[in-house]
Formats: sequence, structure tokens, C-alpha cells
Amino acid sequence: MKALVDKLTSGDVRSAARLIRMIDDNQPAARDALKQLFPHTRRARVIGITGPPGAGKSTLTSCLIESARQQQMSVGVLAVDPSSPMSGGAILGDRIRMNRHTLDKEVYIRSLASRGHFGGITPATRGAIRVLDAMGKDVIIVETVGVGQDEVDIARLADTTVIVWVPGLGDDIQAMKAGILEVADIFVVNKAEHPDAEVTSNYLKSVFRQEKNTTGVPRDWMPPVVETVATKGWGIDALWDVLDQHREYVAGASDYYVVRKQKACRAELENFVHQGLSEKFTTQFADSAMMEEKVVQIASGEADIYAVAESLLAEITVPRQHHVDQLA
Amino acid sequence: MKALVDKLTSGDVRSAARLIRMIDDNQPAARDALKQLFPHTRRARVIGITGPPGAGKSTLTSCLIESARQQQMSVGVLAVDPSSPMSGGAILGDRIRMNRHTLDKEVYIRSLASRGHFGGITPATRGAIRVLDAMGKDVIIVETVGVGQDEVDIARLADTTVIVWVPGLGDDIQAMKAGILEVADIFVVNKAEHPDAEVTSNYLKSVFRQEKNTTGVPRDWMPPVVETVATKGWGIDALWDVLDQHREYVAGASDYYVVRKQKACRAELENFVHQGLSEKFTTQFADSAMMEEKVVQIASGEADIYAVAESLLAEITVPRQHHVDQLA
Repeated sequence: MKALVDKLTSGDVRSAARLIRMIDDNQPAARDALKQLFPHTRRARVIGITGPPGAGKSTLTSCLIESARQQQMSVGVLAVDPSSPMSGGAILGDRIRMNRHTLDKEVYIRSLASRGHFGGITPATRGAIRVLDAMGKDVIIVETVGVGQDEVDIARLADTTVIVWVPGLGDDIQAMKAGILEVADIFVVNKAEHPDAEVTSNYLKSVFRQEKNTTGVPRDWMPPVVETVATKGWGIDALWDVLDQHREYVAGASDYYVVRKQKACRAELENFVHQGLSEKFTTQFADSAMMEEKVVQIASGEADIYAVAESLLAEITVPRQHHVDQLA
Repeated sequence: MKALVDKLTSGDVRSAARLIRMIDDNQPAARDALKQLFPHTRRARVIGITGPPGAGKSTLTSCLIESARQQQMSVGVLAVDPSSPMSGGAILGDRIRMNRHTLDKEVYIRSLASRGHFGGITPATRGAIRVLDAMGKDVIIVETVGVGQDEVDIARLADTTVIVWVPGLGDDIQAMKAGILEVADIFVVNKAEHPDAEVTSNYLKSVFRQEKNTTGVPRDWMPPVVETVATKGWGIDALWDVLDQHREYVAGASDYYVVRKQKACRAELENFVHQGLSEKFTTQFADSAMMEEKVVQIASGEADIYAVAESLLAEITVPRQHHVDQLA
């Protein structure tokens, strides 16, 4: 594992691919490697791109890659498709992979499609970001499809999150509710050649004025709205300007961003622990003869699933918090 | 809680509504109530209806309600919408609730939209089924939208699962993969007035001939395909005939169904235990000063989230399985 980490931190693509695959498969060894990578990380700039299907996220990502390369920055892209077992995450990545960046060694594109029972897509994405960061990529773009909880969680991993919207979807943002607005740093109205683009832009701006902020700290960055036509490369420079402004703003350590980041870290830490607890249970109980017997009893109606679950849980000890404090 | 359970088992609608709300909110008291309901359950016939959006599931459900009422059966309906924070589960239920069954006291319709971090929609649905069962409903229809993992898990709770398909979507079932095919008992091709209906029906039949069966026991029920036009009430009698055939078949205790049911119970029991473990952790750790300190360190880059998660997990003891066996 040490050898893999050494090769990776010197930029080796095959080691990166191998480690990301291990992460996607939720192999325990991957977590060891990720811990070893920690000192080599936190240098990359992580940009999240999300929005509903059909908004043009992949095309926009492709524009950002090109523009980053013109600025001499190396780029990593993670195309994440957690949404359904129907679409199969590879499609998204393949679509990008086939494009003009394929031959550029400074661009590394991977798709992620983890949907195992344990772990899930958010921890896998964090792991993959860490891998690209340790590889030395200057910019990491994380592209997700959708506006559900998975996408909100993944957006929390980025330093700057761009929500891509299109004219005509305007009002539907009401339905997206607090979660996605809270992680939005920049709004892009793509396909802005459409006559409704200005109405949509104005609508998005108005949404933030009314937004309820759940961090308890005033939001001191109002997400700007940038209009683009990604298929023609229009508006990409303006988007980079805003991305740079946001980066400077975050570096200024605003209270809002500190609190938001802590909130995201807490949610993720809890998620890691929950996942680990589930694995402990599975290792020790799930294949036992006792479990088998209980399952047969529940299926036949002899035993009550709620009572069985309770008796299993009574066996597992979580120490009272002061024990931990003594050790901490 | 005893009083609530007594009122519920005598058919009281307001008690049912209250308990389902408690379940949806994942209140601990709800689990006690559900254990008390166990002796009053396992009498209802649970029919699951799922399929992609726009297939006409709600209209079909409405037809089944009417037909069940003509057969003097009381009906409970759970309209489940776990898929996204965008749609807000109430819409589905409202749409049905407004229809012609509103005034019939023997029909009780509820929507479920739980998407809390813990618990999730499948345990909430199981709980709500148990409530309607204990109320004395003869038939319980569980309607879900979509073909993702949530829908597969919910379908496993039903005695008979109907997948609603429409002409023109035929080939997409390839993308649904094993999970949904394994839970399908009956296929409905709705909107069968469409000229492609027969092609779609034939296609669906062919899918099962090629299906890979992961239960390890031969599938001895090949899901029949029924054509309906729910908006006109066509094909509903034929659907009931097949529903009744399937019921008789299951009562005959086929090995395939016994194994399938055990598999579903195992997955659900594990899910309950995972949820309970997460709650234990949250109660004892999540609000502690130690967690707060660790979160601040992770957010600022001083501490590694993987290392912190590991040290927290090391504090929690899952006994080796032989301990449990001694107690079991």
C-alpha cells in the first residue's frame, strides 16, 4: 500500500485508477491508503457542478477543463452518478472521456457509480477527491446529476459549488428547498440564448433574498448568477471570474463558510461512523446461525422483526460519552 | 400508547393517522406501538404497485380500490414517494385522496414521504402497513413511484408486487436489472390501447425467460402480463384474476417464495439494526464536546476525517457472535 501511495503522489494515473476502484468497491485497504494520503492533500481547488438532467453540465465541465488548461492548471474530473441503478454511472464518464481532452495527460477523468449497501456515493466521492488531490491536480471538478440529497451531500465536499440551471425551469427551484440553496455558491443559467434567460436569472437572484439560512450565521456571499452558452463556449470567462472571486472570498475565512464547512464535516463524520458500525454488525452477526434462525422465524410470522432488532441492538455497547472524553 | 393501540385495532382512523405520523417522524414510541400491534397483524393482503412515473399507477390503484369495494373488501392505500426532496410526497396522496373514494369509510388513504437521515422510507412503509393491517383492512395497496432501490425494497414488503409498464418503454426494462425483476409477480401493460402494447407485452414475457435468479431456488411462478387501460377501467377484472391466482400460489408455500421472503426479512432486519446503531451513536456521541472539537479540527485541516472516524469506531463494542448465541 505504501508503494501505491508513493506512485500516486508522484502523479501516476494507473495507481489513481486502482485506488479509486478500491474506494468504489469499499475495500477496507482503501481507507488505510486514504489516511496515508492526508499529508499530501488540501492543495487542490475543488469545484462542484450540479443541476437537473439536461442542463448541459457535461458540456460546461468540458469548457471549464479547456479554460483551466489554458491557464496551465492540471485538472481532475469526477463524474458522479449516484441517482439510480437504471443509468449506470459509466455512461456519463464515457461521454466526457471521448471528447477532446482524452489525449491531454494533464487531464484525468473518472466516473464514480458506487451504490453498494454500505458506504454510498458521498464517502466514495470524498475518497476519490482526496486521490486526485494527492496526485497533484490543481483543479478538481466534481460533476453530479440531479438535485436530490446525494447531490447536496456531494456538493458539500466542494470548495465552490456551481448549480447549473436552464431557462424555463425557473420556478421549480422552489421545490429544491433549503438544502441545495444552502450549498449553492454560484448559479449558472446555461442555454442563455433562450429568450427566457433573463427572467430565469432574475428569478434565481430573488430566491436568495428570500432564503432561510439554517447555519445560524449571516450569509455574506450572495450567489451571483452567470449566463452561459456552453455549447458555444460563451460566458466561460465570466464564470471563471466569479469562481476566482468566490475563492478569494472563502480564503478570507468568512464565518458563514467556516460554519458551513464544519456542518458538512460533522454530517460526513457521522456518516463514516454509521457506515463503520454497520460493517461491524455485519461482520459479527449477519452470517451467524443465530441470525439465520431469527430470519426464518420472522419470515414465517413466529417472531416480530421489531422485537428481534431490539434484542440484537441490546447486545451492542456504545460507551457513555465521558469514557471517550477521557481518551480524547 | 396502550389506549392508542386499542383504538387502532378497533379501526379508529384518527389513531391510525397519528401512529403513521409518529412512524414517519421516526419517533421511538412508534416502535413500541408497532411491537404491540404484532398479534393483530398478518391478516391483510398486501399488494405493491410500482413502475416509472407517468405509467398510470394512481389511476390503476383507483380502479383496484373500486373493484375491491365491489367485492366487499375494506382497503388501505399507502402512497409512497421516497424518490426526491423535489416532489414532496404529499402530492401523490392528495391526488388520490381527492378522487371518488374520499367519502367511503372503508377506504383509508395515506401518503408517506419520510426521508429523514435515519430510518428511511422502507422501515416507515413497513410500519404503516402494519398499522393498516391492525386496523383490519382486508387489502393494503402500497403505491410507489420509480424503479430504484427504494422501490425494490418497498416492493419486498408486499405479498404480491405489480409492476406497471407502458408501451414504448419496453426496452428500458433491461436497465432495471435483476432487483426489480426479482420482486415482480405481475406485469401490467397499462395504456394498452396504444398500438405497441402487444409488442411490449411480448417483450416483457421474454425478459423473464432470460432472467438470472439470485435466490438459488428455481422460480416457479412466471409473472403473467396483463394489459389494462386504467382510465377506462379496462382489464381490471383480468388483473384481479391474476392477483387471486398469485395469492393461491403463494399460499401453496413455494420454495421460491419462502426463500425470497426470508431474503427480504434478512435485509430489513439488518436495516433496522443499522438504523438503531446509528441512533445509539447519535445519542451518545453526536452532541458531545469531543465531537464538536473533532469537527472543528477536521474542517480546519488539522485532523483527518478517516483517522477520527476510526478512533470513534474503536470505542464501540460489538460482541463476538458466540456471546449472542449463548443468550439467544
